[in-house]
Amino acid sequence: MEHEKLYPGQEALLYSHKIVQLSKALWKTVEKDWQNWIKPFDLNINEHHILWISHALGGASISEIAKYGVMHVSTAFNFSKKLEDRGLLTFSKKETDKRNTYVQLTPEGESLLLETIQAFRPEENGVFRASLPLQELYGKFPELTDISAIVRRLYGDSFMDIFAETSKMITEEADRRPQDPVIDSIKKA
Amino acid sequence: MEHEKLYPGQEALLYSHKIVQLSKALWKTVEKDWQNWIKPFDLNINEHHILWISHALGGASISEIAKYGVMHVSTAFNFSKKLEDRGLLTFSKKETDKRNTYVQLTPEGESLLLETIQAFRPEENGVFRASLPLQELYGKFPELTDISAIVRRLYGDSFMDIFAETSKMITEEADRRPQDPVIDSIKKA
Repeated sequence: MEHEKLYPGQEALLYSHKIVQLSKALWKTVEKDWQNWIKPFDLNINEHHILWISHALGGASISEIAKYGVMHVSTAFNFSKKLEDRGLLTFSKKETDKRNTYVQLTPEGESLLLETIQAFRPEENGVFRASLPLQELYGKFPELTDISAIVRRLYGDSFMDIFAETSKMITEEADRRPQDPVIDSIKKA
Repeated sequence: MEHEKLYPGQEALLYSHKIVQLSKALWKTVEKDWQNWIKPFDLNINEHHILWISHALGGASISEIAKYGVMHVSTAFNFSKKLEDRGLLTFSKKETDKRNTYVQLTPEGESLLLETIQAFRPEENGVFRASLPLQELYGKFPELTDISAIVRRLYGDSFMDIFAETSKMITEEADRRPQDPVIDSIKKA
């Protein structure tokens, strides 16, 4: 592409066009992978995201779930209600904050979330498999620094900090159950 | 993150988790930007994508639209029908291929697509604005090579080649109308 010939507005449109195609294609596969992963647990991706965020934050407000889960407040509320009906979380008000509704996982909710983590099979994940050639080249999975910088700019530092929290469950799970046969089978995969 | 302590299965899950959060967040903003851009033309993003792909391929089959637009075949068909109702494209069969349905933009369809291209305002695009600090750092917009490699692996070479075709309209538009006041205003933005 001869970028010298382009106007700044066109360069912007070409870049924007690239982001549109790539992010749509990537998200559609990520979404399908995610759906396949949690289907055996009778959860959709919004419900799974709500369980995960509630766990990570040790209870979360509906607006926090909407923000960190990148979903509408009404979506966050409606699917939280469905999870409450299944006994996976409870709604409450905080003494210090009567305006917001908080959700908290029940032991059943925590247990189901843990089961989904243990059931993750990298070899069945399309994006993971498509990333393996890069992992072989670099010796590690791509850091995705450009995309991270763009998302940080769009959603703020706190959105990125949630990674650390939501990732904890994955690392803690290893410390807790090093001999787990399911984790072992993933290890060997 | 202490990667040394992690099992391969966990590293896969941590990476997958990162991709989920980033691609969901990115796509939701891209989608909103796209909707805002084409709202004045009474088009949704699927309809706009269909116009664009049909133009780029000089007529396209429904399955090509579904593939390159990353949408279900039924979505591609139903929105193409709506565009036909508005006189923006026509359905036909090819002499050499009686099985597939092809769509072809009408002059009205071509003209509307061109109008949308001219109406693109980078300064109103969230992802574009969020990418500007990277553009200042690098002297150009990020190449997104990792994501491109992953998407190429997932969707094949032909999916990536469509970039060249769909990008042509943007560059050709500049050659054709260098003094266009709308393009000039984008240039100055």
